[in-house]
Amino acid sequence: MPLSFLVINGPNLNLLGTRQPEIYGADTLEDVERLCRDTAKTVGGSADCFQSNHEGEIIDRIQAARGTHDALIANMGGYSHTSVAIRDAISSIEIPLWEVHVSNIHAREPFRHHSYLSGIARGMICGCGILGYKLAILAATDALGGKK
Amino acid sequence: MPLSFLVINGPNLNLLGTRQPEIYGADTLEDVERLCRDTAKTVGGSADCFQSNHEGEIIDRIQAARGTHDALIANMGGYSHTSVAIRDAISSIEIPLWEVHVSNIHAREPFRHHSYLSGIARGMICGCGILGYKLAILAATDALGGKK
Amino acid sequence: MPLSFLVINGPNLNLLGTRQPEIYGADTLEDVERLCRDTAKTVGGSADCFQSNHEGEIIDRIQAARGTHDALIANMGGYSHTSVAIRDAISSIEIPLWEVHVSNIHAREPFRHHSYLSGIARGMICGCGILGYKLAILAATDALGGKK
Amino acid sequence: MPLSFLVINGPNLNLLGTRQPEIYGADTLEDVERLCRDTAKTVGGSADCFQSNHEGEIIDRIQAARGTHDALIANMGGYSHTSVAIRDAISSIEIPLWEVHVSNIHAREPFRHHSYLSGIARGMICGCGILGYKLAILAATDALGGKK
Amino acid sequence: MPLSFLVINGPNLNLLGTRQPEIYGADTLEDVERLCRDTAKTVGGSADCFQSNHEGEIIDRIQAARGTHDALIANMGGYSHTSVAIRDAISSIEIPLWEVHVSNIHAREPFRHHSYLSGIARGMICGCGILGYKLAILAATDALGGKK
Amino acid sequence: MPLSFLVINGPNLNLLGTRQPEIYGADTLEDVERLCRDTAKTVGGSADCFQSNHEGEIIDRIQAARGTHDALIANMGGYSHTSVAIRDAISSIEIPLWEVHVSNIHAREPFRHHSYLSGIARGMICGCGILGYKLAILAATDALGGKK
Amino acid sequence: MPLSFLVINGPNLNLLGTRQPEIYGADTLEDVERLCRDTAKTVGGSADCFQSNHEGEIIDRIQAARGTHDALIANMGGYSHTSVAIRDAISSIEIPLWEVHVSNIHAREPFRHHSYLSGIARGMICGCGILGYKLAILAATDALGGKK
Amino acid sequence: MPLSFLVINGPNLNLLGTRQPEIYGADTLEDVERLCRDTAKTVGGSADCFQSNHEGEIIDRIQAARGTHDALIANMGGYSHTSVAIRDAISSIEIPLWEVHVSNIHAREPFRHHSYLSGIARGMICGCGILGYKLAILAATDALGGKK
Amino acid sequence: MPLSFLVINGPNLNLLGTRQPEIYGADTLEDVERLCRDTAKTVGGSADCFQSNHEGEIIDRIQAARGTHDALIANMGGYSHTSVAIRDAISSIEIPLWEVHVSNIHAREPFRHHSYLSGIARGMICGCGILGYKLAILAATDALGGKK
Amino acid sequence: MPLSFLVINGPNLNLLGTRQPEIYGADTLEDVERLCRDTAKTVGGSADCFQSNHEGEIIDRIQAARGTHDALIANMGGYSHTSVAIRDAISSIEIPLWEVHVSNIHAREPFRHHSYLSGIARGMICGCGILGYKLAILAATDALGGKK
Amino acid sequence: MPLSFLVINGPNLNLLGTRQPEIYGADTLEDVERLCRDTAKTVGGSADCFQSNHEGEIIDRIQAARGTHDALIANMGGYSHTSVAIRDAISSIEIPLWEVHVSNIHAREPFRHHSYLSGIARGMICGCGILGYKLAILAATDALGGKK
Amino acid sequence: MPLSFLVINGPNLNLLGTRQPEIYGADTLEDVERLCRDTAKTVGGSADCFQSNHEGEIIDRIQAARGTHDALIANMGGYSHTSVAIRDAISSIEIPLWEVHVSNIHAREPFRHHSYLSGIARGMICGCGILGYKLAILAATDALGGKK
Repeated sequence: MPLSFLVINGPNLNLLGTRQPEIYGADTLEDVERLCRDTAKTVGGSADCFQSNHEGEIIDRIQAARGTHDALIANMGGYSHTSVAIRDAISSIEIPLWEVHVSNIHAREPFRHHSYLSGIARGMICGCGILGYKLAILAATDALGGKK
Repeated sequence: MPLSFLVINGPNLNLLGTRQPEIYGADTLEDVERLCRDTAKTVGGSADCFQSNHEGEIIDRIQAARGTHDALIANMGGYSHTSVAIRDAISSIEIPLWEVHVSNIHAREPFRHHSYLSGIARGMICGCGILGYKLAILAATDALGGKK
Repeated sequence: MPLSFLVINGPNLNLLGTRQPEIYGADTLEDVERLCRDTAKTVGGSADCFQSNHEGEIIDRIQAARGTHDALIANMGGYSHTSVAIRDAISSIEIPLWEVHVSNIHAREPFRHHSYLSGIARGMICGCGILGYKLAILAATDALGGKK
Repeated sequence: MPLSFLVINGPNLNLLGTRQPEIYGADTLEDVERLCRDTAKTVGGSADCFQSNHEGEIIDRIQAARGTHDALIANMGGYSHTSVAIRDAISSIEIPLWEVHVSNIHAREPFRHHSYLSGIARGMICGCGILGYKLAILAATDALGGKK
Repeated sequence: MPLSFLVINGPNLNLLGTRQPEIYGADTLEDVERLCRDTAKTVGGSADCFQSNHEGEIIDRIQAARGTHDALIANMGGYSHTSVAIRDAISSIEIPLWEVHVSNIHAREPFRHHSYLSGIARGMICGCGILGYKLAILAATDALGGKK
Repeated sequence: MPLSFLVINGPNLNLLGTRQPEIYGADTLEDVERLCRDTAKTVGGSADCFQSNHEGEIIDRIQAARGTHDALIANMGGYSHTSVAIRDAISSIEIPLWEVHVSNIHAREPFRHHSYLSGIARGMICGCGILGYKLAILAATDALGGKK
Repeated sequence: MPLSFLVINGPNLNLLGTRQPEIYGADTLEDVERLCRDTAKTVGGSADCFQSNHEGEIIDRIQAARGTHDALIANMGGYSHTSVAIRDAISSIEIPLWEVHVSNIHAREPFRHHSYLSGIARGMICGCGILGYKLAILAATDALGGKK
Repeated sequence: MPLSFLVINGPNLNLLGTRQPEIYGADTLEDVERLCRDTAKTVGGSADCFQSNHEGEIIDRIQAARGTHDALIANMGGYSHTSVAIRDAISSIEIPLWEVHVSNIHAREPFRHHSYLSGIARGMICGCGILGYKLAILAATDALGGKK
Repeated sequence: MPLSFLVINGPNLNLLGTRQPEIYGADTLEDVERLCRDTAKTVGGSADCFQSNHEGEIIDRIQAARGTHDALIANMGGYSHTSVAIRDAISSIEIPLWEVHVSNIHAREPFRHHSYLSGIARGMICGCGILGYKLAILAATDALGGKK
Repeated sequence: MPLSFLVINGPNLNLLGTRQPEIYGADTLEDVERLCRDTAKTVGGSADCFQSNHEGEIIDRIQAARGTHDALIANMGGYSHTSVAIRDAISSIEIPLWEVHVSNIHAREPFRHHSYLSGIARGMICGCGILGYKLAILAATDALGGKK
Repeated sequence: MPLSFLVINGPNLNLLGTRQPEIYGADTLEDVERLCRDTAKTVGGSADCFQSNHEGEIIDRIQAARGTHDALIANMGGYSHTSVAIRDAISSIEIPLWEVHVSNIHAREPFRHHSYLSGIARGMICGCGILGYKLAILAATDALGGKK
Repeated sequence: MPLSFLVINGPNLNLLGTRQPEIYGADTLEDVERLCRDTAKTVGGSADCFQSNHEGEIIDRIQAARGTHDALIANMGGYSHTSVAIRDAISSIEIPLWEVHVSNIHAREPFRHHSYLSGIARGMICGCGILGYKLAILAATDALGGKK
């Protein structure tokens, strides 16, 4: 059965490519989302992409994924470190999560070393640039028994 | 004088009944809100109910309650543990608060043991399931000198 | 089947009504115990009440409740924050616990924010004055499937 | 060249003048914004003012300021203490920040002593009442080489 | 008016004179109590002395002092560091407290550096041997306006 | 010279065999005390056994052992983690202590990892079930130069 | 009534202009003091300036200000982070304090994030360069009802 | 230019497939190493694999890689959390590091949440099973400009 | 042999009687020093008194006491909490120390709960007002075997 | 069935008898190993003994015990406090562990109070000298149902 | 070019030789200063020596060294652990620092383990007695390229 | 009597001269060892040098030094911060230790600020480059009464 991925990017990731390129690289959010859709297609599935700077909208989007998607690929940006509510939303719909961070959060400020999502994630990929999204989709496919 | 209650449910409580029923039980948000309205009626008052996954909308709703409601019955979900802004909104309009949690937050992950709201609440009820809302309305009625 | 409640009040609660009334109110322990018996009767059950300033006597009393009571309603006062032994006694006889505090312990000194009992309680009610005992009995009745 | 300021007020600052006047004073948000516009004019510049209770809207507004404003004057209220995402938004557009707090946050509850914004701010002014906004604009003008 | 002192010695102080004399000296509890009675007489008052190893008995004794004594002179021994319940008992009857420790608790193990009683004491005397009891009575007399 | 052991069991250990048998096993306190007496006899000594749920009674019992017993074998249960007073009692009479815990306290809740007694114990045995008492008596015999 | 300001600069501020100019700028202490006197004059008041590297001299100077000055404008340099005695001196004479730091102390080493003075200051201004002194005088004038 | 990878597996990873398969899966170290070699080949490079339970041997192996390999793919197992010396070895030869953990270390015991290697890693992949090794090689290839 | 006391008062104690009288009372430093001299005379000794706001002067004065005084009675004010150097000076001349605080430092801000001097003091008296100085001299006399 | 024990002694235990005899006693490693073999024989089993100062060799030895031994008796010396890798090795082969320390680690430096092994041990014996090894074998025999 | 050293000794170092000789040895400050001058001469340079118990005087002396000395050899005694102001003075004049402590501060009380100076020192020598001053001058000479 | 030194260099110090020369300088391990031998000769003694990346080998080497060497000069590199076992080895053979670090560990990452060896060292020298080894030998010679 083809896998359906939901890819959520959180606050400020709409600025990818323009925001601190020495940390986040030159690729744009559009590039990220195209990469996700292409990768999903490669493994015989599909990817829906969503970005928002609003914690509430992200929660709404996650809730709406119950029963429609097989896996969540998420880079929650700054909300990773502060949002119990997003964590709860993911737990609520019981969707497996692969967490992505473009930069290596462990090599940055201490407040970025802890993510509320990591505790409920299946896997976590950071510091691999935007390629991390692709790798997360491959990892999810592998874990869920999809075509690789 | 009949008491007017504002009942606010925060993020993911719209999923009550479907979300992790082993923790939160089988009753839905609709059940909760009906119970609140019924309880308020029993004590000769009325209850307005509001749910949102958006921190900002919750703050807006609280601010709008100045002068229109006598007590706030609130289950802020994940925002309980992270939102100074919601705490400030409640302090700003000087409405007495009864905090409710469906599960016993003290018996779960450490990050759920602290609530920014508890420090300004009049009372706190947790671990009593959705009955907690009813109990909170009874407690508020008692404290505010309403009919019991 | 009628429910049998054991209500235990810990140290200094025998002074209720005279002790710091600005925090604890004007009702006496006698009022509390009458309220508990009345509430229990209302739900078709009965309540036995016990107060002691002695940690050891409280432990003895809890142990004696094995098989004789269905639920424990307990306000352990200062022992809530320091007694592992009382916690162990409750765990030992596997009786469900509803914890009550007359004042909101979260809005007082930091050493009152943590209770050794909360981690094993089914529910916790604080800051609702002596009404909290009544609410706890209602919550226990609800959880144990008794008449409400 | 005339300087263009963006003034952002965060959650609950729309209640200024009505909210806890013993802490925040009697001036309203309208007074604050007029003061900012007048001060900006005095230094030969202009000020755009924005207030929101929504973290996401604040992030959106900050992002939109890239290239349109020379300095950010911001009082993020409760989000100061909890929002990594707002900090990231400001870093993303590389706009110099002057942080303002009406009250002296260092003389209040411990959780108000730390602001995620301070680490990236050029200057910080607190406890000077609404005058703090004017002072921040003067400081920004001085730092950016504008007319004083 | 002659002042009436209640002198309470907590756990293990019945062993004074025999217990670790290199820390606690050679005087016995009897010596301490005689010194207290003599000192009280000197200032025109009287002293009742009580010792127990039982936390509950100490609480009972404190409660019984409401209205019968003007000041509490207390060395709670090991309970100083662990008993919220004794602290609450003293607060409950609103009797002014002077805390005594025979040894200098600040120069011993870290767990002895904090006393739950110090926060509610009027004065604290430690490291002055059994003379500390006499000094505490003199201090209490001075503070309460008695004959010195 | 035959060795005289004092075996003290603290709060809730009177429930051994009935209390959480998955943690504490099926043997009763009677079994424990018989095992202690038998073991003591084997090494040519004798054992007196005492159990109480009361901290004060335990302190009284310890104090009474000065000069009458050669070693203390103690499982203070929940008081291990909270009682400075019991620690002081043991130090006061300068009796060598072997501490016993039926379960492995290091593999349970964090608040059980620290025992006030360990710092003054000669030896500590945990997680060996009720056999631990026998082993402690053997260890004490060995250390005190008794028959093994 | 014209306001009288006392401006105190603490250790190493006599080196302003020569000390780490990338942090502290090129203006000298003389510039700072002239700016303070000019600003004070502008608001119809006067400023007395004092600098010392000696904690004791600073305390002496503060004490001498009782009754002679209306407000204290102080940059205590390194003593901000370590001196309880200077804090006490200011509290002792009950003079309102505006704290100034040339650099943004929140963006430097962690030990500079806490100032003993902030807890008793009316306002705090940091990171605004030497202009901060002028802003502090304006803020003090505003708060004390002087001419602006 | 073809990339040369060094793949190091630390202590206990030789037991992969047999060790706690519910955490680590059924694949063996041999499977991991074959996967690495195959993946390296796919991107036109090669992989040398090394496993040791000895911290010193791992350091020796890392040092020997200076100038011979382009990237280090490392799962240091238990040494990740305790070895400064391995971190220093990697820093010493200035080889870019991609860290791999088979399980999600953030969802396990707290002492596994911190890795001394993460602070110097380019990327980190955990919780993706043995596929993580392949993903790390792809990420390294991408970062180093090799064929993907 | 008559005892010779050195009484040192630290920063801001020259303001006694005028400084925050609700905390420190109405007696002046002159009163304190007279009380010390009178008390010393009563026990057949003498007291030299010294006050300074300068840490260095206090250290100089302590050093000069080697061989000239038998005991140090010291209230180091704010330096109590911050000065290792004063502690070292006292240790250096090996003079026995009795520490005095007019107010109960344990009932004030947390940073006043720790004193660097307490660890090397023989005794400590706080919260007894200026009478504390007299009590300290009596305690020192008692400990040093002087006339009482 | 006869039980097969693996006894592992870690770093510096080869120096037993010569190393700090006031802490570790006069018995040598040879004595320890003979005691283990003798004890094992007494319970109808056998003991293999191993000592190494090398963390890696210890891990290798543990791994090799899978299927060959029934229980591990281990004193890991300094590695107890620092080695996650040894803990993982033991978990990997799922052998029950009894931890031994010759001295009472809880009465020594704080860094010796925590052992990474305790969390996965069945039992722990410390402070009983080399007899502890014998006791551990008896405890293991008891737990595994062997002859006692 | 001959190197010019400034040697500063802080509080209580004027007591060297008389102060706690079991810690600090029998050499006097005069010995230390002669050693420094002799060593400086040996390497073809010169040493100016200064001692003060006053933090402010030390800061003044450091400031005066700008441009007159090539290196600072400093033992700040108790101020090492508490003075940000001295650290700032050294940073201000950008003189390279070698820190000396006569005793090994890491083997003493915890509050001596941290020195504010170490973070800006080039080298640190402790526990080598007064020889440490000579070694520091040799190290400075080596680092600054002087004659050795 | 000529002194015999054992010089041990720990992990990664074999890379000296090639490893991060901006931190560790250009001298090689061979240079260090030659310097040690030359210095030892200068003071009429001799030095044996040893380097290993293996914690176990280092422990073995230390143990073998009992009775053969008079002092240990040791730079344990990364093991300084993590190895209790090496500390124990040194304590076991009771050899006096002088600890050396080429760089100033107090000015680097926080995890390098603490060394397990410092607590048992006689002296510690850091930040003096490879000259530190020479200085340590001189310090040891001085302390042990050898020729200087």
